[in-house]
Amino acid sequence: MTDLELVRDLSEEQLLARFVPLLPTAASTIVGPGDDAAVVSAPDGRFVVSTDVLVEDRHFIRAWSTGYDVGWRAAMQNLADCAAMGSRATSLVVSLVIPGDLEVSWVTDLARGLADACGAHGAAVVGGDLSGGQMIVVAVTVHGDLAGRPPVLRSGAQPGDTVALAGVLGRSAAGLALLGAAVADPDPTLVAAFLRPDPPLEAGVRAGVAGASAMLDISDGLLRDAGRIARASGVTIDLLDPADSVPGDLAALSEAAGRLGIDPLTWVLTGGEDHGMLATFPAGVELPAGFRVIGSVRELGASSTARVTVAGAEPPVTGPGWDHFAG
Amino acid sequence: MTDLELVRDLSEEQLLARFVPLLPTAASTIVGPGDDAAVVSAPDGRFVVSTDVLVEDRHFIRAWSTGYDVGWRAAMQNLADCAAMGSRATSLVVSLVIPGDLEVSWVTDLARGLADACGAHGAAVVGGDLSGGQMIVVAVTVHGDLAGRPPVLRSGAQPGDTVALAGVLGRSAAGLALLGAAVADPDPTLVAAFLRPDPPLEAGVRAGVAGASAMLDISDGLLRDAGRIARASGVTIDLLDPADSVPGDLAALSEAAGRLGIDPLTWVLTGGEDHGMLATFPAGVELPAGFRVIGSVRELGASSTARVTVAGAEPPVTGPGWDHFAG
Repeated sequence: MTDLELVRDLSEEQLLARFVPLLPTAASTIVGPGDDAAVVSAPDGRFVVSTDVLVEDRHFIRAWSTGYDVGWRAAMQNLADCAAMGSRATSLVVSLVIPGDLEVSWVTDLARGLADACGAHGAAVVGGDLSGGQMIVVAVTVHGDLAGRPPVLRSGAQPGDTVALAGVLGRSAAGLALLGAAVADPDPTLVAAFLRPDPPLEAGVRAGVAGASAMLDISDGLLRDAGRIARASGVTIDLLDPADSVPGDLAALSEAAGRLGIDPLTWVLTGGEDHGMLATFPAGVELPAGFRVIGSVRELGASSTARVTVAGAEPPVTGPGWDHFAG
Repeated sequence: MTDLELVRDLSEEQLLARFVPLLPTAASTIVGPGDDAAVVSAPDGRFVVSTDVLVEDRHFIRAWSTGYDVGWRAAMQNLADCAAMGSRATSLVVSLVIPGDLEVSWVTDLARGLADACGAHGAAVVGGDLSGGQMIVVAVTVHGDLAGRPPVLRSGAQPGDTVALAGVLGRSAAGLALLGAAVADPDPTLVAAFLRPDPPLEAGVRAGVAGASAMLDISDGLLRDAGRIARASGVTIDLLDPADSVPGDLAALSEAAGRLGIDPLTWVLTGGEDHGMLATFPAGVELPAGFRVIGSVRELGASSTARVTVAGAEPPVTGPGWDHFAG
């Protein structure tokens, strides 16, 4: 048995000396890590900001996710929020809570995961905070640049708009289900979709440039997140039959669904955390690369209740709706 | 016994519906909470950003700190980082991890503490994230505006500069020690200094306007934080004898120090978390309101090692140096 180096074997300063050099840098950083605060360029006089937290035993378990996976996912779910406003990420700050008995290599792997997720998109980690604690918590805040464009909100969808999607549906949920069922040889594409989601961030920026009327990233499932646009905009969102609009997503899930005895439509309509970009575009706008039509925006129906339909009818499945506290 | 309403009795949406309306707002917010991200004004084309985390049983315990106290302190330690760059805070985002058996009133009290700490300084809470978890974690990211000025870094102190302080020394440490010793009728001023520090944020902004050459907020004790400026700037920082420079701080601690058998000088020189502004000013600059002279910047000595002296000699006490992981 090798001697594992643990977090409690190092001083905070020593740990930071290992961690900080691994973090990604970017030209938008005016003052980077090491002072009381960082300073970041915001060329158009505004910045986009969002924060998301990952908690051990709630969002991940160490048996399935490496430090690299957790760093990647923590960055990516934040980068997706930035992209869903139509902005390009410039910078992140990371608050990290770690137990003393965690391996140091887990922490440096986390930095590498952060770096690889951010680096491809030109975003830097410009600051952070480190604390001990009983469980791992990774709280990331991301900042984005809109390059002079208006932000794409959830509230701008209009009747007659096209509903379009960039990215995949249901794969992260399927990967999680495969890990949970401990099946032999789970589909590695699906498991990776859960552990290291890779949403089409540039498509979000392109949607902003093209003039998307509303957008969000799908973190809680297509039905639930489409419902958020519907409510914020005061419209009905009618999705096409997924068998017609997203046959590839259904096909990608079919083997795993068969093994677990699950209807793949459930994953496609209610599976979260793929972080695809769900957007609406005014009629006549050419869809940016990466987007495909999956529905249309309609007036509120007779009930005047914002809702989501599938092929004009009640959705064929309903999701549990993720809730962090429900008993 | 009354029926306490617990976090797990509410859905996430219900909890947010109680929490979000309590948060402070500000004119700098272009898009506030409720979308994938917020949008904040950054009029000079840059923003200052810092993040700090508070962890239950590490930075606070529920027996001593109310939700209000924790919200106040989480905001204030971040606001102090912003001020220590010479910037004025515009906006915060908050990631909150809470156990299901926490009282809902604790969470709404936290929002009120955040609001009261921010509100007086014109900063808004523009977004956040909420998750369950075994222990409470409050991760705050703050953003500040420099109004066109250069940021005040730790690295700009020059031999001949004046070392000055705005704010108090040692009171938070004394308050913590009184709580830890469970003494009867502890000095309420000292206890409040620990539970709800109230650093002179505007003095930080004034220091930036006046042309401070270096600055930080004292989070780990005067000696340790002065050492950070010394190292970053490559200088010696020579502090005056505290009996001459900060007699009021020593006097404010004397009763508590007597009760606990501690030299008040230890708290003054090594007590952290008062978040006073420690700054250096070029000779001839008139000190901004709130600052008093506590030392001077000198060339590196013969050893060429950046260090802190007191009245030209080794400091009379040394602190333990806070470390989150040391066994």
